Amino acid sequence: MVPEFQAIQDDYPDDFAHCYGCGRLNKDGLQLRTGWGKNDETVTLYHPRNSHIAIPGFVYGGLLASVVDCHGTGSAALMKHRLNGYEPGDDEPAPRFVTASLQLEYLKPTPHNVELMAIGKVEEIHPKKFKVHIQVFAGTEHCVTGEVVAVQAPSSFSRK
Amino acid sequence: MVPEFQAIQDDYPDDFAHCYGCGRLNKDGLQLRTGWGKNDETVTLYHPRNSHIAIPGFVYGGLLASVVDCHGTGSAALMKHRLNGYEPGDDEPAPRFVTASLQLEYLKPTPHNVELMAIGKVEEIHPKKFKVHIQVFAGTEHCVTGEVVAVQAPSSFSRK
Repeated sequence: MVPEFQAIQDDYPDDFAHCYGCGRLNKDGLQLRTGWGKNDETVTLYHPRNSHIAIPGFVYGGLLASVVDCHGTGSAALMKHRLNGYEPGDDEPAPRFVTASLQLEYLKPTPHNVELMAIGKVEEIHPKKFKVHIQVFAGTEHCVTGEVVAVQAPSSFSRK
Repeated sequence: MVPEFQAIQDDYPDDFAHCYGCGRLNKDGLQLRTGWGKNDETVTLYHPRNSHIAIPGFVYGGLLASVVDCHGTGSAALMKHRLNGYEPGDDEPAPRFVTASLQLEYLKPTPHNVELMAIGKVEEIHPKKFKVHIQVFAGTEHCVTGEVVAVQAPSSFSRK
């Protein structure tokens, strides 16, 4: 089920849409999608696969790291796109960010078989570098706190 | 191809062997294996799947986070097992650790289609809590620095 919101990943140029975490063109990947939520916060929703467990009943930490990672780069891209005057769905190629650093605190075991919701607040460090402060909820439980520093991808990363 | 070394994950009790990252009983997972290397360092080897890309040619950061995560818990378990008087392969159930915190610095893009090697140094914080300092290499290139704080899993995590 694809959530009913405009996601920044829908507007990544094809060359930047192969990410295992959030690439719409990576058929084996997680296909994470990140959009604007309330109060200038960013949102990513994801329902873990049956196999995404650490111990039966609890979500795998590496999957949570993947959600935080792509939520971070997606949130930075959303903000940069907005600062450039665009929103997702405007038919304008979105900027693409890569992760410089990733941090997670696992506050409690994350229950499995519940939708995950990552919420982000974006802080501009400089025009090509953003810090995203992230909370991950499983249902109503706040299970993970994360931080991503994301840097705009140099065009040399593209195959073109 | 399974590397020819004794891994701590081979000795996790079945109830703790379902992790998406390192559970030998998770058929869809990465089945990461962690053993002792040279100079009291720990080693995990992994060859990323074709789909594990961020951008074509470069490894996905969330996969690197997964390798660091399980290398951290595996390294802590190796050290605790040794402090208890055992080595992998001794036919003694290994202790199981969970991740309290995870940190990665992506020093440079990690080339894809090269074997990854995570190297860890384990520091005891207290008898049930270890910090693991990690470097990830793609071939000879040092691409990622990581740190994991791992805590011994309470027995209540087991289904038994």
